Amino acid sequence: MNNSKLDHIRHSLSHILAMAVLKKFPDAKLGIGPTIDNGFYYDFLLPDKLSEEDLPELEKSMRQIIGQKIDFKKSVLSRAEALKKVSANKQNFKEELINDLPENEEISFYESDDFTDLCAGPHVENSSEINTESFKLTHLAGAYWRGDDTRDMLTRIYGVAFNNKNELAEHLKMLEEAKLRDHRKLGKELDLFTFSDMIGGGLPVWLPHGTVLRDELEKLAKETEFQCGYERVSTPVISKEALFLKSGHLPHYKESMYAPMDIDGEDYYIKPMNCPFHHVVFQSKMRSYRELPLRLAEYGLCHRYEKSGELQGLMRVRSMCMNDAHIYVRPDQVKEEIKQVIQMHQYYYNLFGIDKVSFRLSKHDPADLGGKYVNMPQEWADNEQILREVLTEMKVDFFEAENEASFYGPKIDVQIFSAIGKEYTIGTVQLDFAQPQKFELKYTDETGKEVMPYCIHRAPLSVHERFIAFLIEHFGANFPLWLSPVQVRINSVADKHSEFCQNLGQELKKHFIRVQVDLSAETVGNKIRKSAKEKIPYTLVIGDKEMASDKLAVRVRGQEKLWEVSKDDFIRNISENIKQRKLEL
Amino acid sequence: MNNSKLDHIRHSLSHILAMAVLKKFPDAKLGIGPTIDNGFYYDFLLPDKLSEEDLPELEKSMRQIIGQKIDFKKSVLSRAEALKKVSANKQNFKEELINDLPENEEISFYESDDFTDLCAGPHVENSSEINTESFKLTHLAGAYWRGDDTRDMLTRIYGVAFNNKNELAEHLKMLEEAKLRDHRKLGKELDLFTFSDMIGGGLPVWLPHGTVLRDELEKLAKETEFQCGYERVSTPVISKEALFLKSGHLPHYKESMYAPMDIDGEDYYIKPMNCPFHHVVFQSKMRSYRELPLRLAEYGLCHRYEKSGELQGLMRVRSMCMNDAHIYVRPDQVKEEIKQVIQMHQYYYNLFGIDKVSFRLSKHDPADLGGKYVNMPQEWADNEQILREVLTEMKVDFFEAENEASFYGPKIDVQIFSAIGKEYTIGTVQLDFAQPQKFELKYTDETGKEVMPYCIHRAPLSVHERFIAFLIEHFGANFPLWLSPVQVRINSVADKHSEFCQNLGQELKKHFIRVQVDLSAETVGNKIRKSAKEKIPYTLVIGDKEMASDKLAVRVRGQEKLWEVSKDDFIRNISENIKQRKLEL
Repeated sequence: MNNSKLDHIRHSLSHILAMAVLKKFPDAKLGIGPTIDNGFYYDFLLPDKLSEEDLPELEKSMRQIIGQKIDFKKSVLSRAEALKKVSANKQNFKEELINDLPENEEISFYESDDFTDLCAGPHVENSSEINTESFKLTHLAGAYWRGDDTRDMLTRIYGVAFNNKNELAEHLKMLEEAKLRDHRKLGKELDLFTFSDMIGGGLPVWLPHGTVLRDELEKLAKETEFQCGYERVSTPVISKEALFLKSGHLPHYKESMYAPMDIDGEDYYIKPMNCPFHHVVFQSKMRSYRELPLRLAEYGLCHRYEKSGELQGLMRVRSMCMNDAHIYVRPDQVKEEIKQVIQMHQYYYNLFGIDKVSFRLSKHDPADLGGKYVNMPQEWADNEQILREVLTEMKVDFFEAENEASFYGPKIDVQIFSAIGKEYTIGTVQLDFAQPQKFELKYTDETGKEVMPYCIHRAPLSVHERFIAFLIEHFGANFPLWLSPVQVRINSVADKHSEFCQNLGQELKKHFIRVQVDLSAETVGNKIRKSAKEKIPYTLVIGDKEMASDKLAVRVRGQEKLWEVSKDDFIRNISENIKQRKLEL
Repeated sequence: MNNSKLDHIRHSLSHILAMAVLKKFPDAKLGIGPTIDNGFYYDFLLPDKLSEEDLPELEKSMRQIIGQKIDFKKSVLSRAEALKKVSANKQNFKEELINDLPENEEISFYESDDFTDLCAGPHVENSSEINTESFKLTHLAGAYWRGDDTRDMLTRIYGVAFNNKNELAEHLKMLEEAKLRDHRKLGKELDLFTFSDMIGGGLPVWLPHGTVLRDELEKLAKETEFQCGYERVSTPVISKEALFLKSGHLPHYKESMYAPMDIDGEDYYIKPMNCPFHHVVFQSKMRSYRELPLRLAEYGLCHRYEKSGELQGLMRVRSMCMNDAHIYVRPDQVKEEIKQVIQMHQYYYNLFGIDKVSFRLSKHDPADLGGKYVNMPQEWADNEQILREVLTEMKVDFFEAENEASFYGPKIDVQIFSAIGKEYTIGTVQLDFAQPQKFELKYTDETGKEVMPYCIHRAPLSVHERFIAFLIEHFGANFPLWLSPVQVRINSVADKHSEFCQNLGQELKKHFIRVQVDLSAETVGNKIRKSAKEKIPYTLVIGDKEMASDKLAVRVRGQEKLWEVSKDDFIRNISENIKQRKLEL
């Protein structure tokens, strides 16, 4: 069975769900019932309450319907016939949908047994094609009709469906695990970040442990970028509107920008992107072809408007710190440079143990040149081919998407999957021939002529907020040593061991190892449990026996056996682990 | 001669300057003529033009007056007598000054020869006390009467005066050197930072070389603070007004804040200070006495309003990145903690070769408790004594200033002097018992009772902008190796040496040495001059001879003799220099 078949099944299940609901509530009004990632949902206006406890009963009813081996028959109707059909059933939401359909749109229905539903399809031919053990209704939610909070609130029933029982079980297990790994939950438990009503939604306050994650990622980026020939810059977070008028962010991107501040009678905006500022750096002096590629990097702080209802932990925020860089290249350097950027992506993913990555080559539509896409046909053709060549030569997993490029040029979008298979949209490598034109960027070529460079936008580590949310869920907060907020915890058994513990702590600290010393009066058992709960990589307990020994007995996170090691070897060993940024302890 | 004597001389010189000007322009109207750092000035409304070329003539005239050994005689007059005296001379500016004097102020005049001037003094008794070779008129400026641009524009004549000829010569030399070291000039020449009209005044754009300075300073702070038990946080740069209402920045600090941005109908402000955000971190969970001192550090980005006319390079900006930290302490920990902070100041100053530092203990005025100062008399008394004890025990150079504390508590202000003797106000160590009260900060003490901590504000490295301006001028941009934007420049003699140069460059880069390879077709002489002009610590030239040798011949900035050294020793040596942050190459 391929995924397209699965899509048929999911559509049909949504249809069958509606049948089951109508059986229970004959007066229910039907909203929309589309398929989504991994499953489907359906919205209903119900005459009576429905709770999640009722879902097994609905599932059972759906299985009965499937068992009846019903056929799905498609019919295409005229608008008048269609309206007649739904109004006969008093389905006024469907009536509204039909009325709003574009003039030329085919209006199709699927009929099965005694139930007919407006649906674009596709469906399976017969319900016997559906494995009754491979789907599950998962949860309920409220949803305004057409997302409009002045209209009716409908009940949305969600379901998931797969090819077989095992796939379903795997998915449900992943959902369970994902709940445990939710970065909002772990972020709170491990004191990584917080939000404050006094400060405002979507503006994370990074606590000390979370700040370690940021600092370590930034250090990684700095070191990696240094080796790859990047230079760092630091640019303001606010600017007069003049800059954003020049870049075109005003008016084209205005809805994602915050309202201006008045300074001395002029409008200043908090920046939504770093690019215009880097163009100013490029322009700060005359550039020669010898200076290209010029790679300007900045972990830049940007602010973008998100509706307050759409904010979600660190995944959807209003302030974000971006692993940004803009690379100014000669046209003949595009290929080599894009390759280096993709290699950097791969280097990072490998470092974090991200096994599954998918790349998408997003291309323009020649019919929309001068409209949705900047009108530079030759540049589009040449550079889409170059990006394709890079991805092909590098043998990465990619697919091509028509009509998905940005206005400025073709791009490569990157999806990564966490250890439990959850997908994250993380970054984009964007080739840009339009902004250099807007800013009239120039360099002098070998012949002394002034030529326009291209610009590559890239951010392999995404923004701190999003990438750290990913890492928390990917590792379940069991971070590699180099990322761990606390790397070593030293616990004293009794007061007489305090000094020894503190001296040992001081010694580790001198090696820049993040160590905590717990001298509290708690029992040793409690201290060890606390350490495990906080996912601390190495835990030591120091009592009489340990002080008498010339070895340390180290509890390693996730391991049963104690690690017996001399102090010097311990320090050497973990310093090396940190330096190499190993995945394993 | 002590400084108070010098003050007498400077007042008298301002008086004598007025006499000389009146000799040249009998109809001149006199404005104010105070003493200032290193000298004095006097404002005049002149009937005719005066240029800087006329200053030597005025100086000569002043010397003649001094040579006449005139007496200065002080007299105190009633307001009526005073007004009569100045109106007789048609000195309407002086009339205005007298009218605006407070009721009880003594109105004193100094008389000499045929000239009497309104002046609070003090003056020398006889002009023979003034060394005619120890003063100089330096420059002119325009100044509105009483700073009001609707009033007359007066001509301000500046002069400097010292105890003797040598001190004057030294000062003039310092002024010359300061001009050469001006951070705005060097910042431009060495591509450290720039400003853009499109972005706005006071918002520096840090170019790659300047960003190295920022990054190295931040790294220094991170390492130092880690060893001293600080934890880093990262907080938003904008917040709802609620936070600033709580902290009292609104309305008390509103004039230094930017206008609000509207987000979803609420006012958000860009932050002028980090403290309220750190208080939110403190409050993010219940705190125990065991956690104190809790030291929260952040190189936080703040924005403060400065009038556009007052912006000045990096010394006076609108956006600044502050080496901030807030230390939450129990009252019994204040002394130890303040001591550690002062030690950190001293550690930094020593590292940068800052020999002259002066500390000021700024105290409250008991008469103004509940007004200018938070009404906590016992806390003031106790803690001023503690700060005094710290400074005394540490044997630092400090003086006490009455009525100079902030609202929140006593503070220690720090002045540093650059290598050429220029003074910079750089930092403050501030004890605060008021903000913890406003935020209702609490910790649980040994007995389980909830108690308020104190807060210490500190920023020994000031803000990046100001401190880097200082460092540029202090070092004349001849930075120590660890701070140098480019540490090594490798120059090829001809094309056939390019590969060798590049390989050598790559090898240095692997050791995180900031190296540039210049393969251009310039002559070797030009390349070496360029390197010297850019103040690059180590310069190599690679030709046939160098490629055949097993040693490198290194030109060291500021030294005549070549440094002959094997490649491995070169790398080892400079890596060690960088690691130790040595002052010398």
